[in-house]
Amino acid sequence: MKIIQYPKPDQWTDILQRPIQTIADIERTVTEIFNDIKRQGDTAITKYTAMFDGVELNNYKVSKKEIDDACENVSESLKTAIYMAKTNIEAFHEAQKTSKVEIETSPGVRCWQEKRPIEKIGLYIPGGTAPLFSTVLMLAIPAKIAGCKNIVICSPPNKEGKIAKEILFAAQLCGVTKILKVGGIQAIAGMTFGTKIIPQVYKIFGPGNQFVTVAKQLAIKYDVAIDMPAGPSELLVYADESAKPSYVASDLLSQAEHGVDSQVILISTSKLLIENVKTEISSQIKDLPRKSIAEQAIQNSKLILVESDDIALKMINEFAPEHFIICAKNEELYINGITNAGSVFIGNYTPESAGDYASGTNHTLPTNGFSKMYSGISLDSFTKSITFQKITKVGLINLGETIEIMANAEGLQAHKNAVSIRLKDLKK
Amino acid sequence: MKIIQYPKPDQWTDILQRPIQTIADIERTVTEIFNDIKRQGDTAITKYTAMFDGVELNNYKVSKKEIDDACENVSESLKTAIYMAKTNIEAFHEAQKTSKVEIETSPGVRCWQEKRPIEKIGLYIPGGTAPLFSTVLMLAIPAKIAGCKNIVICSPPNKEGKIAKEILFAAQLCGVTKILKVGGIQAIAGMTFGTKIIPQVYKIFGPGNQFVTVAKQLAIKYDVAIDMPAGPSELLVYADESAKPSYVASDLLSQAEHGVDSQVILISTSKLLIENVKTEISSQIKDLPRKSIAEQAIQNSKLILVESDDIALKMINEFAPEHFIICAKNEELYINGITNAGSVFIGNYTPESAGDYASGTNHTLPTNGFSKMYSGISLDSFTKSITFQKITKVGLINLGETIEIMANAEGLQAHKNAVSIRLKDLKK
Repeated sequence: MKIIQYPKPDQWTDILQRPIQTIADIERTVTEIFNDIKRQGDTAITKYTAMFDGVELNNYKVSKKEIDDACENVSESLKTAIYMAKTNIEAFHEAQKTSKVEIETSPGVRCWQEKRPIEKIGLYIPGGTAPLFSTVLMLAIPAKIAGCKNIVICSPPNKEGKIAKEILFAAQLCGVTKILKVGGIQAIAGMTFGTKIIPQVYKIFGPGNQFVTVAKQLAIKYDVAIDMPAGPSELLVYADESAKPSYVASDLLSQAEHGVDSQVILISTSKLLIENVKTEISSQIKDLPRKSIAEQAIQNSKLILVESDDIALKMINEFAPEHFIICAKNEELYINGITNAGSVFIGNYTPESAGDYASGTNHTLPTNGFSKMYSGISLDSFTKSITFQKITKVGLINLGETIEIMANAEGLQAHKNAVSIRLKDLKK
Repeated sequence: MKIIQYPKPDQWTDILQRPIQTIADIERTVTEIFNDIKRQGDTAITKYTAMFDGVELNNYKVSKKEIDDACENVSESLKTAIYMAKTNIEAFHEAQKTSKVEIETSPGVRCWQEKRPIEKIGLYIPGGTAPLFSTVLMLAIPAKIAGCKNIVICSPPNKEGKIAKEILFAAQLCGVTKILKVGGIQAIAGMTFGTKIIPQVYKIFGPGNQFVTVAKQLAIKYDVAIDMPAGPSELLVYADESAKPSYVASDLLSQAEHGVDSQVILISTSKLLIENVKTEISSQIKDLPRKSIAEQAIQNSKLILVESDDIALKMINEFAPEHFIICAKNEELYINGITNAGSVFIGNYTPESAGDYASGTNHTLPTNGFSKMYSGISLDSFTKSITFQKITKVGLINLGETIEIMANAEGLQAHKNAVSIRLKDLKK
C-alpha cells in the first residue's frame, strides 16, 4: 500500500495509470479457434471443450431434467436471497422504460423515436471456482424486460460436464431455458457464427477472462455487437473524517479479492483517515479465504492524500472509476461533480457489494476508464432506438424548399428531385 | 435492375447479401500512419496532409477570420434553409432529454440513474466534391444539447488549403469554433492520441470513406469509442398499389446517387407497381448530374415481388435496412412490425431526403444490417448513464442478509464482510 501525498498534476497520469495488458499472443489463438468453429461448427466446439474444460460431452445443451434438479438442490435461504435481489433488479430496470418520444417539428412534420428490443442475444457466464449466478440476474432480467425474443446462455462445464446449480436456478427463474455448456473462446465464436446447436446472436453480453475478452473483440469484426470493452474490476473511494475506516477498508478489500489485477484506490483530504484505513486493511485481510489474491491487489493499491475536494474530484474524473464510493460530509459536491464513473455508492451504509448483488442497480460496468464514454449495462443495452417520420402534404409544402436548397448545395440532385417531383404535384 | 419474383426463404440470404468489403490492405497503411502520428504528432499530420490532400499547411487550425468570411459568403437562401433545419433537428433532439430515473427498490434503498455528457468528442466531416454541412448539423446539434464540453471538428482541406464555407457556417452556427483542417486517417489518429494542436477525444463521430472507417476501428483499440461501425448507405422501400411509382423511383434514385456501392431495394406485393417503378427509374435517371454513379448502384438494385405483407415484413426485418420507406395502405402493419431499421419514412409525402436534411430526425444511421443491434445517432450517443445508490441504516438491515448469502454462495468472503462489519454495528 503506497501512500502518495499531495501529488502534483503532472504526476497524475503516472499515478492513475492502469496496468497495460498484452494480448497479441492471445489474438492468434483466438483467430485460429474462430476459423475452426466457422468451418466445423459443433465438431470444433466439442473438440475445444475437451481441450480447455477437460470434459467430453455428447450433448452440450442443458436438459430440462438438469434444470429441475438444480432448482431442487439450491438451498431455500439462497433462493430467498435471489428472489429479493431479482425483485430489486427488476424494479430498477423496469423504471428505465421510456415512452415514445414524439413531436411535430414543423406543422405537418411528425417525428418520433421508439425503442425496440434486440431480437437475438447471447449471455456469457464464466465458470471457474465460484458460480457467478449474480451475473445471470444482471443480464437476463433487463433482457426479459426489454423483450428480447431469443436469449441463450453459454457457460463452461466443470470436469463432470455440469454447470453450477445456482447458475441454472437463476437462469430458469429469469425465464431463460436455452443454456449451453460451452465456455471461453469457443462459446463466443459459436454465438458469432451459429452452429447447429448454438444460435447465432446479434449482441453478446457478459464478463470473462482475457481469452473471452479478446474473443468478444474479434466477434465485432464479424458484425456482432458486444456490451462493452472489458478490463479488470476497480474501486475508487473518496472518504473524509466522517467515514468509518473499518468500513472503507472492508470495501477496498471486497474489490481486492476479485483478482490480482483489481484496481483499488483511496483518495482523501485527511491523512489520519488514510492511516487508519491502512491499519484496518492489514488487520481485516488476515482472515480472508482469498487472502493471497487480495494481498497482491492491495500491494498495487494507492492511498492518495490531496489538498482539497476540488483536486480530489478532478483526479476522480480523470481516473473514471468503475465503482466510486463517496463517504464524505459534503457528498453533494461529489454527486453533482462526478462526470466519469460507472456506478456511485453514497454514505457509510452503502457498500459496493450492495450493488454487486441486490440493491437493484446493474453490476456490469465500464472499467479501464471507459466510464468516460460508455454506460454500464441498463435496459437500453438490450434495445435500439428507431426513428419514424410522417409528413403531410402541407408539411412537405412548408419544408420542401429547405430540403431542395440544402440538397442542391451538397450537390445531390436526386435528393432534391425526390422533393421537387412531389411539390410539383402539390402545387398544381 | 433485377426483378426477383416470389423468392423462396432459402434464397433470401443470397438475395439480401450485401457486397463484402475487403479491408486487409488498408489496415496495414492505417496502422503505419497511426504509429507515425503517435510518435511525431503534428509533424506527421502536416506530412500526411501534404501527401493525401496535396496541400502544405503551416497552420491547420481554422482562424476566426476564415469563419467570419465563410459566414459572409454563404447565400441568404442557404442560411435560411440551414436555420429551419437546425430548428427542427434541435426540437427533435431536445425532446429526447430524459429525466433522472429514481426509485426506492426496497425500503431505505434508493437507486437512481442519470445521464451525463461525454466531455471530449470529435466530429469528422468528410471533404471531397460536395460539402457535407448537413452532417455538421446532425452531430454538433445533439452534442451541444447533451452538454459536451469540448467539441472539435476535423475536415480535410481542399487543394487551396480551405474548408468549404458551408461547413464553417454550419459549425459556428452550432457553436463549434475549434475546427481543424485535417482529414482521413491522420484526423482520426490525431484525435485518438492528441497532438499539440489536435485535442485527444473520448469518442469520435462521423462518416467517411473506407480509410476513415478502418481508422475508426483502429481507434477503438486505443480505447477511443466511435459512433457506430460503417458501411455503404442503403434504402429499402416497401410499396403497394397505393404508392406513386414516380415518387418511389425518385426515392430509390436519391439513394443510388450516393455511391456505386449504395444498396437499393424495392419490395412489393404488386407486380404492376414494380414494373411502373422500373420504367420511372429509367426515365428519371437520364437527367441526373451523378447519373453514372446512380446507374451502377441501380444495376445492383433489387426489385422483389412477394406473396404477402407477412413475407415482406419478415424479409425487411431480415435485411435490417438503414432507411425504410413505407408507402402502403396498411402502413400500421409495417410500423408496428418493423424491428430492424435505422429510420422509417411513412407515406407518399415523406421522402428520405426530408430526414437527410431537415425534418429533425438524425441522418447518421446504422448500415450493413447493424440496425439489428445498433441505434442511429440520438441525444444518448453523446451521454453515458451513471447509476447512483444510497442506502440508509434501515435499508442495509433489510437488505444485508441477502447480500451476505449471495456473496457467500459466490465464494466472495470480503464482499460479505463489507456488509457484516456494518450490520454488526447496526444490530448492537
